[in-house]
Order: sequence, then C-alpha cells, then structure tokens
Amino acid sequence: MTTTTATGETTTKNLALAIDIGGTKAEAALVDSNGQVVPGSRFRRPTGAGSTSDELAAAVRSVLTDALATRAAGTDLLGVGVGSAGPITVARGLVSPLNLAVWRDFPLRQLVVDSVPDVPVTMRMDGECITLAEHWVGAAVGYDNVMGMIVSTGIGGGLILEGSAIAGPTGNAGHIGHVEVGGFDDPCLCGGIGCVEAIASGPKTVAWANRQGWTGARGEDLAAAYAAGDPIAISAVERSGRAIGQAIASAAALDDLDIVAIGGGFSRVTPDLFRFIRAAIAKRVAFGFVTKVKVVPSALSDAGPLIGSAALIHRAEMIA
Amino acid sequence: MTTTTATGETTTKNLALAIDIGGTKAEAALVDSNGQVVPGSRFRRPTGAGSTSDELAAAVRSVLTDALATRAAGTDLLGVGVGSAGPITVARGLVSPLNLAVWRDFPLRQLVVDSVPDVPVTMRMDGECITLAEHWVGAAVGYDNVMGMIVSTGIGGGLILEGSAIAGPTGNAGHIGHVEVGGFDDPCLCGGIGCVEAIASGPKTVAWANRQGWTGARGEDLAAAYAAGDPIAISAVERSGRAIGQAIASAAALDDLDIVAIGGGFSRVTPDLFRFIRAAIAKRVAFGFVTKVKVVPSALSDAGPLIGSAALIHRAEMIA
Repeated sequence: MTTTTATGETTTKNLALAIDIGGTKAEAALVDSNGQVVPGSRFRRPTGAGSTSDELAAAVRSVLTDALATRAAGTDLLGVGVGSAGPITVARGLVSPLNLAVWRDFPLRQLVVDSVPDVPVTMRMDGECITLAEHWVGAAVGYDNVMGMIVSTGIGGGLILEGSAIAGPTGNAGHIGHVEVGGFDDPCLCGGIGCVEAIASGPKTVAWANRQGWTGARGEDLAAAYAAGDPIAISAVERSGRAIGQAIASAAALDDLDIVAIGGGFSRVTPDLFRFIRAAIAKRVAFGFVTKVKVVPSALSDAGPLIGSAALIHRAEMIA
Repeated sequence: MTTTTATGETTTKNLALAIDIGGTKAEAALVDSNGQVVPGSRFRRPTGAGSTSDELAAAVRSVLTDALATRAAGTDLLGVGVGSAGPITVARGLVSPLNLAVWRDFPLRQLVVDSVPDVPVTMRMDGECITLAEHWVGAAVGYDNVMGMIVSTGIGGGLILEGSAIAGPTGNAGHIGHVEVGGFDDPCLCGGIGCVEAIASGPKTVAWANRQGWTGARGEDLAAAYAAGDPIAISAVERSGRAIGQAIASAAALDDLDIVAIGGGFSRVTPDLFRFIRAAIAKRVAFGFVTKVKVVPSALSDAGPLIGSAALIHRAEMIA
C-alpha cells in the first residue's frame, strides 16, 4: 500500500519483518519498502556463547514478537526476512553459526514460520543480506556485480552477480573469508591454509601484532596505536590490508566484480586500510578487469544487516 | 526445424556456426542442437605467435567460410557463437588473448558479423564456452553450479551459477587460474603472487621439476616419469594437484559450487592428479559446503570448445 502525504511525499505502508542472527545478538525490526527501519520497532537480545539452544530460540522469538507488536494499524506485513551467520543449509532452513556452537543444523526458518505463520519467510546467510543492503541503499547502488564484505571478528560476505543475489545451492556463496591468499600460510579453523579470515580479521591482526611485541589487546587499541604511529601497528594493518586486497583480487578474477563494499568494526581501524587493500589489487597489472574493481567503505548504518534481511522480502525479485 | 526419421529418432536441422580462437589455432564447425559437430564441417588454421593481425583475421575468415560452405540444403543457421581466449571486453566485442600479442582490443565480434551478416553473433570467453559444453553434453549435465576448468599451458575456466552462465560485466568471469593459493608465492605474469596458473600449469609444473633436478622438457615427459615412479615427477604432480585443489576450495567457498569439470592436456598427466586435488579440498573439514564439491575429468571430446561456442546460440537462455 502506498500513500501520498499532504506535501506530496510518497511513503509506504508495506513492511517486512527483518531478523538478524549473529554470534553476539539476535535483532528484529520492521523495515519499510524504502529500506528504512520503522522508528521504535527495533529490538535486540544477546546470544551469548553460554546460551542453550532453547535460550537462543527464546531470544529470537522475543525480538520478533516485540518488533511485530509495534506494527501500526493500516500497514501490511509482506513477509519475514531472516539473515543468519553461516554456514547455513538454505533448502532446509537450517543454521550452524560458527560462533553459536549449540546450534548445529538448527531449524531457524521453521521457528520463524511457527511464530509468524501467515506470510512468506525467506532465510539467507547474513553476508548475502549485507550485500543486498549495500545494493539497495548503501555503497553499491546502481552496480550489478557486487561483493559485500564484513571485516570484524571474522571475515564474511555475499555476492550479487549480473544483478541477482547468488545464494548458491546450500546458501553459502560469499564466504570470502575462506578464500586463500598467496604468500601466507596462516592455518585456518576451517582446515584451509592462508584463508584471509585467518590473517586479517580484527583478532588475527591483533594476534600478529602481539607476536611482533605489541602489547595491546583489542582492535580499538590497534587503531589508536596506528593513529599514534606505532611501527608494529602500522605493519600489522598494512599486512592485513594487503591480504584482504589479494583475496579481493582473486574474487575479482573469478567473478569479475564491479565493486566491493566493506563494513564491520575492523574495517574502520584506519581509513588507510583501504589504501593498503587497493595497493594489493593494483599489483594485478596485466588484468584491467581485476584492477577495475572499486573498493569502498560500507555506506550502511548499524541497521545494515536488518535492512538486508528486509531486502529478502522487499527486493524478492533479486533472489533466485 | 526438427525432423523425425523412419526409426522414430528425432534429429535437428537447426545449426549454429561455432568458432573457437586460441593461442595456437582458429577453428570453426557447424554444430546441431543436440551438441553434435556436423561431420565434415570442422576446419582449423594455425594462429602462430609470429602471425600478424591481418593473418590472424584471415585465418578466422577462412575457417568460418569453409565451415559455412558445408551447410546442407534444408538446414537453418540460427546464429554464430564465438569463443575466444581472454581477456575479452564482451560489451564491445573486443579480444586481447594473452598468447596472441598482436591482438589487443581486436574487434573479433565485428569481424564475424561482417562475415556472416544476417544472424545473431554471440561472443564469450573460451572458459565460459567450455563450461557451457560440460553442462550441455559433458561431465556437468544436470548441475546448476558448475566450474569448467582447463589445465594446460595455462589454467582457465568459466562459471555457471544457479543455472545461468556468468560472464561478468567485462566477460572475464571464470579466471580460476588467477585465484591465489595459500602457502605458495610463485610470481605470476598477471602481477599476482601464488596464482594457481603460476604454480600448476603444465609448463610451470615441468619448470618446478627441473629446478629439483629432473631433466625432462614437456608435460608428456613428466607423465611418463610419473608413471615410472620418478620421485621428483611424483612430487611435482602432487604439488600442482594440491595447488589446484586449494584454488578450487577457495572458489567453492566463494561461489558454493556443485561440481568442477577439468579438461586440458595437463589434466591427463596421471589420473592421480584428481586424487591430489580432492585431498587438498578435503582439508576444509569444517565446511561441508566446500568439501561437497565434486571434481571430475572433463567428458568432452576435443571438439568441446566448439560445442561450447555453439551453446551460446543453442542454449541462449543460459546466457545473461
């Protein structure tokens, strides 16, 4: 339903319920068809590592119920979009978030269907949702070949290729964090060698700096040390930026990307991180189709994951 | 046009003219809608490194004219499919094959349009064509998420994701040869570090064996040495198989692939190559969506590239 205000501005009463499940929190909100979170509709509950499966499920039910309860009369609920940390099994609606060990093949989609029975429910990996959000209202508006990327405690992402969101047969396409990087041999928890997540996530960058003698503990400390000109901090950030750039170059060689939008806490360690990333990509001198890829900071607010979950409903035409 | 023979077998009179341009030859043939090369219609001319641009163009005109001249009365020419070594610029119909230095942004598509003016002409990178052929009549029939791959003097490939051929905005998607490999730092001609092509192509594998003291000169020699149990040859093939497997694991993490079909001369160095490839992928123990990927030999004849070029016409619905 679309209404026009007295001033001629077009607003929408078509809402999606957006749910985002991560390693530290479950969130829900109502999101309109312009990609705006409805004020007052956003709710959050922690999903601590000590939670039981039932406690996690209760947290999800709580936030979605609270968000739905704010829905105004005269609005339409089009559906529910659910983004989850991966891996997932999209066809069966199961999630196994690496950082929520008590959920392995947990039927998250069915939990949501049971809670909101009368509308479509679409579930995808959080990296795909973030990418849809960048494409909808973020840094990748107008591009058909996009990788969204989060650099935080882990490194994840998602893909839009030739204008369509690529989930993959299991829903796990976009795992850029587990693309290997030449010249690095850091062991990865997935079993790989030199995966970019094992090199360049916030905690892994801090750990590398610690091994060189730097004594800080967190990404925020590293950001401060970098800003103060600490040589180990500078080396650590340069090393991680180089690894991220090399991983993006491989992804661009394989998928011929237009643009990569990078968010996540550690992506803001210093604006120079993007300079290091771009310098690594620029080494692929023989391949203009690789060096053409734009690498830009995310243009999403911290509601980006929710907006992306809502895109599963509002922009359903982009979902295979 | 479809006709039914006296025995009830359905045959087709709908033909595509298929053209394949590589570093050593230009080929053309007529291909029917069952993916069969029409007997007697296949022509080949060398494209040597010493050729001028005009000589290359003449070779292309020669093979396409010869192939077209064999077309029987009563058949329909639906269009022309052109596969070319990359990089290419698909929107402008230009090709810059790495191994044909005199062609840089050469207007190959226009050359074909001028030669065969009254039908559609579609041009894509050869790796994409090979992948379409595997999906049509080869080892990847029935799969929606496919990477075709050639391991030969170089390493190339193409992608079908969610049932659609992915060309990418420039037509260069599928450059698996320039995905980096963790733990390797071999310099690549593209400017990258540890690209799988720089490690595991036939010539690069031979060169590595030579550096270890093996004295053979060609991939065929290495195959014979491997079969005879030469320890350096075994190490060299294992090393290349491991690198190929790691590159495939990265591609599977990013694109969530069902199956990878590998052809090209060096892929036949020994059947054990596939064992080494699969062993490297199996290391990604935490990610079932990566280890699920099937890796199989190509099921195409040496007409695979032509059949793939014809698929650009006969299976146009798969092309974005």
